[in-house]
Formats: sequence, C-alpha cells, structure tokens
Amino acid sequence: MPVNLKPLDPSSLHPVPGLRIGVAMAGIRKANRRDLVVFALDEGAAVAGVFTQNRFCAAPVQVCRENLAASSAIRALVVNTGNANAGTGADGLARARRSCEALAAIAGCKPQQVLPFSTGVIMETLPLERIEAGLPAAWGALKADTRADAWADAAAGIMTTDTVPKAASRRIEIGGRSVSVTGIAKGAGMIRPNMATMLGFVATDAVIDPALLQPLLDEAAGRSFNRITIDGDTSTNDSFVLIATQRAGHAPIKALDSAEGRALREAVIAVAEELAQAIVRDGEGATKFITVQVQGGRTVEECRLAAYAVAHSPLVKTAFFASDPNLGRILAAVGYAGIGDLDQGLIDLYLDDVHVVERGGRRAAYREEDGQRVMKQSEITIRVDLHRGEAQALVWTCDLSHDYVSINADYRS
Amino acid sequence: MPVNLKPLDPSSLHPVPGLRIGVAMAGIRKANRRDLVVFALDEGAAVAGVFTQNRFCAAPVQVCRENLAASSAIRALVVNTGNANAGTGADGLARARRSCEALAAIAGCKPQQVLPFSTGVIMETLPLERIEAGLPAAWGALKADTRADAWADAAAGIMTTDTVPKAASRRIEIGGRSVSVTGIAKGAGMIRPNMATMLGFVATDAVIDPALLQPLLDEAAGRSFNRITIDGDTSTNDSFVLIATQRAGHAPIKALDSAEGRALREAVIAVAEELAQAIVRDGEGATKFITVQVQGGRTVEECRLAAYAVAHSPLVKTAFFASDPNLGRILAAVGYAGIGDLDQGLIDLYLDDVHVVERGGRRAAYREEDGQRVMKQSEITIRVDLHRGEAQALVWTCDLSHDYVSINADYRS
Repeated sequence: MPVNLKPLDPSSLHPVPGLRIGVAMAGIRKANRRDLVVFALDEGAAVAGVFTQNRFCAAPVQVCRENLAASSAIRALVVNTGNANAGTGADGLARARRSCEALAAIAGCKPQQVLPFSTGVIMETLPLERIEAGLPAAWGALKADTRADAWADAAAGIMTTDTVPKAASRRIEIGGRSVSVTGIAKGAGMIRPNMATMLGFVATDAVIDPALLQPLLDEAAGRSFNRITIDGDTSTNDSFVLIATQRAGHAPIKALDSAEGRALREAVIAVAEELAQAIVRDGEGATKFITVQVQGGRTVEECRLAAYAVAHSPLVKTAFFASDPNLGRILAAVGYAGIGDLDQGLIDLYLDDVHVVERGGRRAAYREEDGQRVMKQSEITIRVDLHRGEAQALVWTCDLSHDYVSINADYRS
Repeated sequence: MPVNLKPLDPSSLHPVPGLRIGVAMAGIRKANRRDLVVFALDEGAAVAGVFTQNRFCAAPVQVCRENLAASSAIRALVVNTGNANAGTGADGLARARRSCEALAAIAGCKPQQVLPFSTGVIMETLPLERIEAGLPAAWGALKADTRADAWADAAAGIMTTDTVPKAASRRIEIGGRSVSVTGIAKGAGMIRPNMATMLGFVATDAVIDPALLQPLLDEAAGRSFNRITIDGDTSTNDSFVLIATQRAGHAPIKALDSAEGRALREAVIAVAEELAQAIVRDGEGATKFITVQVQGGRTVEECRLAAYAVAHSPLVKTAFFASDPNLGRILAAVGYAGIGDLDQGLIDLYLDDVHVVERGGRRAAYREEDGQRVMKQSEITIRVDLHRGEAQALVWTCDLSHDYVSINADYRS
C-alpha cells in the first residue's frame, strides 16, 4: 500500500510533441505483462543522462554512457523490465549493444543513436531474442504525441516491484507558447540513488540550448532523486534522462537563470521531485513517508551524511514502522554519521512540531505522548539541528516493515 | 534462536584470581531480573578500554574515558542493563559520575577508580536511586575468585535483547604457571562496532607490563569486535575492557612478540573472537551466520569497505534469510562500497566452494542449485576476490529476518 499516493490519472499527463511512446509484451520474465517500452524522438531532440555511481554498473548503463558521448543525436530509447542485465560481464555488454542495433534497424538510425535501459533481477542473462522479437510490436504501437495515455502505458511498462505506475506532469508558458514537462519513474527497492533513481525519464518540448540540458538535469537530480533512500542499496542500473524535443516554438532558452530558464527549471524540478517522492511513497513495504531534515551544519555534505545515517538506520526505520517514539535511535545515527568533531551537547531534535531533544539531552518538557502522536501519522518530518553552521540537507525515506522483508525474501519467486 | 551457539557451561569458565564479581537485582527497568553487575579488582590490576566512535557517545563512556585518563589504578566496575544513559545530556553525565561515587564509597576507593557501563534504552533518565540502592547487594554478593559461576552470573546480568548469556574462557601456561583468560559480552542489536562491541569484559591473571595492555586490547578488538556487524548501527555505548590482575606469579611479560606475549595474545584474541562471533550468532532475529571475506584488494581499508557494504545490505541479508541465491545483490553492494576505481570486470565471487561469478559475470558453469545448496546452510562464507592487490579483510554478520523487525518494533514495550 503506497503512502498517500493517488492513482495515476492518464488525462493529467501532458503529451510532449516530438516524442512518441510504444509499449509491448515481450515475455521477458513473465508472460502477458507490458515489459518493453520504446521512445522515439524526432530529429533535433537533445538528451542528457545521469547514471548510477555503482562501480558494478549494469551493461545498459555502460552503453548509455558510450552512446551519449558518441552521438549528440539520440533518436530512440529501449527500456525493458524483468531483467537488469547487470553482473553479466562481456556477454551482457554485447547483448545491450545488440538491443540497440535491433531498434536502430527498425527506427532507421545508427545503433549509437539508441539508449538502452534495463531493470529487474541481477546476474541473469538478458533474453535478447525476446527483446528483438518484441521490438517490432513496440515500435508499431508508437502512439501519436497527442495521445495522453501513452505516458501512462509507459509508466506501467517499466515497473518491477512497484505497486503503482508513477508519472507527473506540468504545463507552463514560455514566450507565449504552452510547454509540457512530463515524466515517469520506477523504483520500489534497491533505492539509494547516488546520481539518479532506478529509472526516470522526463521530457519537455521546450526549446533550449542543448548545452544547458546537462546542468538542468544535474540540478533536478540533486533536488529529487538524489534526496531519496529506501534501503541504502545503490542500484547497478540507476538512470535518469532528460529529453528536450525543441518543438514548442518559442525563442530558445539561452540561460538557466533567465526568466524562461527559471520557469522551465521549476517545472522540471517539480516533476522530478514528485516522481522521486512517489518512489519513496511506494517503497517496498512502506507504511510511512519520512522527511529527514538536517540543519545547522558547517557543510551540506555533513548534513547529508547525518540525514542519510538517520534514513538508513534499520533501528530508526523499524521504530517508525512500530510508531514507537524510541527517538534516541535518531541521536545514535547522527552520532555515527561520520562527522568527526560533532559536539553532541549542541544538538536539537524535533519530530514535526514536537521539540524532543535540547542540547543533546531529552527535553524536560517533552512528553512521550506528544512523540507518540506524531509517530502515528503517515507523513512525518524529523528535524535535527546541529547548531554549528548554516548548511542544511533534506532526505526522503520510508519505514522498514515486515513487508520489506517479505518482498525481498520472495522477489525472484 | 541463536545460530549454532551452545548453552553456556559455567564450569568451562576459568576464574581469574584478583577479580571478584557480584550481581544483584536492582529493578532498573524490570523487576526480578539481574541487572546490576560489579567487578572488584585487587590492588595492582591494570585496565585498558576501547570505546564507541559514535560522537553521540553515552555518559558512562565519557566517564570511562575520563577515569582511565585520570587514574592508573582502577579498582571497580559498575555495569547496569535496562538503561543506556545515552542522549541524556549534562544530567546523564552527572548521574554516571554519581554511580561511580556510590560504588567508590562502598569499595573504599576514589570515584576516579571506578568505571561505569550502561546498556539498554536510549534517551531515558538513568534511575540512579535504584542503582545506589542495589549496589550494597551487588557488592555484598561478590563471589570468591574461585567460584566459576560468578562469570556466568555476570554474563546473564548484562544482557538486553540477547537470548543467551555469552562467555568464553581459555587456560594457558606461561613460565610454568597456569594463566586464565575469561570474558563475557552482550550484544544483540545496534551492532556495528567501530572500536568495540556493545559491552565486552575480558580479564586475565597474567603478569604483564601495563603499557602493553592497550596495544594488546587494540589488536584483540581489531580481530574480533571490529569484525562484526548486525545492522550497521554503531551504538552509543560500545565498550570493550581488558583487565590484567597480575596475579599468576610468572615473570612479567615485557614484549607482545615474546613467546609468553604471543601465548597471551593468542588466548585473549581467541576469547574475544569467540565472544564477538557469539554476538552475531545471537543477533536479533539471526537465522544464519555469514562470513564475508574480501581478498585481492589494494588496501585493507578498501576490503573492509566492500565487506561491510555486503554485510550491511538489506537486500543481501533478506536474500540469505530466504535462502535465495539472488547473488547479484552481492555484486551490487561491492559496486557501491566506495572503491572509486574498482574494475568490475576483474571480480570473482564464491559462495563457500561454489564459484559463482568470474571476471564480473555469472560463470557459465554455475548452477543455481549449487548456490541454493549453500544458501540453505546455517553457516555460509561469501568470498569476493577483487583481483587488484594482496590485501584482505573479514567481517562476520547475520541475515535480516522478520524477527529482526518484530524485535526492534517492540523492543521498548
């Protein structure tokens, strides 16, 4: 049961002119489910990507990096679920490349103009022949860019243990033209992105200097997918892609801090943030959505260390699952986060509006029933003030429940 | 149910002349359980300690450090369970000091000659009045140093969520004299010692230059308590103490690499290792004892990074709980361990005798039923070869089960 996540409304997803989506059932891991998605980009689209920092990155991530470096004219994306093509060595790399060749042959472009993405179980051979067999159907299903449900179909087609499809969309006006920003993502487990989420695709028809796309993507990732964690396991396949089809017809955006640039940044960040939060809300076994905010640090980096230590602590997460205000566990996590010269005597801790710890000790006025009241909510903010500087950081996470263990003990079966 | 841990046999624990133990029921958290332990040391004993590196360290840890720095003549230790006196600010520090004063008054020594230890729930006020009220009974119960069951009583008296008391003992000969090395420990959860375990006390009657005690303790900690992890949560209270009562009557050990020094080191390390393993075997909800061995690294530090990443991964731990050879999760953990220039194409992975991954990819000859066979065992060795150097490291851990969640969701109730 996702935490406060509304069912997807396909009509809320604005189409992005210049981009078409096709979905097929290729039987990659299971029969009769949508597991193969292709994106077709009209000529002139600009594409940027950020990828997992896991050194054991999957074959498709390696090929994405190669092809983005080799070609500035990406024309198609192929995404499969059911198999991650990770831990598959040289053979996996060859299969990822051949999936690009297969789609390139159908799309009429070069293999280097195709980006491949895979998600699913690790260390099993990618069933390339099924992808090759499924691609004509997926390409044949390419929907007109005015069909809203194409994005919803794709959101469903990239799910693994996600319980609901995840999509978000905004419409803004730039230079008198209507501009769409629409995206989808999948997540669920193995989520502690170090660059991006497992898979996230956001597209806009805005007209923008292609050189600005990567900094825009980096900023959006930092404000969204790089703020979430479910279990601290950085995936081998994390990928987040931003596509600009350049079709909206307004004058090109030449600077991100121009009025038009700011409008686009805001919309892209809002879509990315909504997708990132949706991943946490649908985290494996999640029953609570928790915001961890660390302020008063000397550097953003040390605030992030502390926030992630709290967000990863199995003891903190199980206490939240139990609605038990065993809040000393939060202090302990801050203490081992790796801030070498931390002075515990300065630290304050708040649970929503409840001031729990003052100067490193339990506050005299703190009543357990106040902590208990907040712990029972489905959305909770943990705020830690280190009182040693001006920096801050924010992380979104969920609790650790019996269902997390069940899901991950049974995932492959 | 601890994993392959035999019930404690009090008669296997060799007494340590020069050290006496008293246990009492002080009602610190619950009535009618042994929760207060005192150690009395004869004059002349040498004591060394290593403590948590958590910056949010508990009040008793701070007082231990102060008193060990101030006095070279420790005469007594006071240990309570049920309350950790952590996250308790200046008031907690005052209470820890007053517990030393109370025991010093009874023992006839200075407060600085007493070391305090606490374990239990965090961020609740230490019920000092109950400790003060219980100390005369504990002191009065001091058992003669020839009574073997004193150690067994103390092992029971320091437990929290441990399901069995933990003790280990060796007897060696030095200079024609019989020498004892005996110790106890408690653990169970919040275990990722960065210097020591939650609480460990090892004593010997060996005669040794007091200056050698700290290096001996450091070596023993590195080979035992610093090799274990249950949930990656470094406690606020971790303490490991080594006591040498100097009573065995042989010529003093002047060097750790002398024949006598080596004999003592071996025995102390063996006791510490057995205690550390017992903590993992009795880890909260543990059903399997897992050794993670990383070899072929450039440095020990990078091997430890990789071993701890594997040992902490909730996905790896749940897969072991389920006996599911979803072994790609191990590769993923090695990949995000933080070894910046790791080449995944060099990595081999073994599960006991089964060669699973070769040069970063699933081995062609690997059969899932072989992995499955090993996964079903209660003791499993994961071996990762990075093939980039000569260094290695070893970590002991357990799986992540439904019971871990249950225990930690209910711990305070």
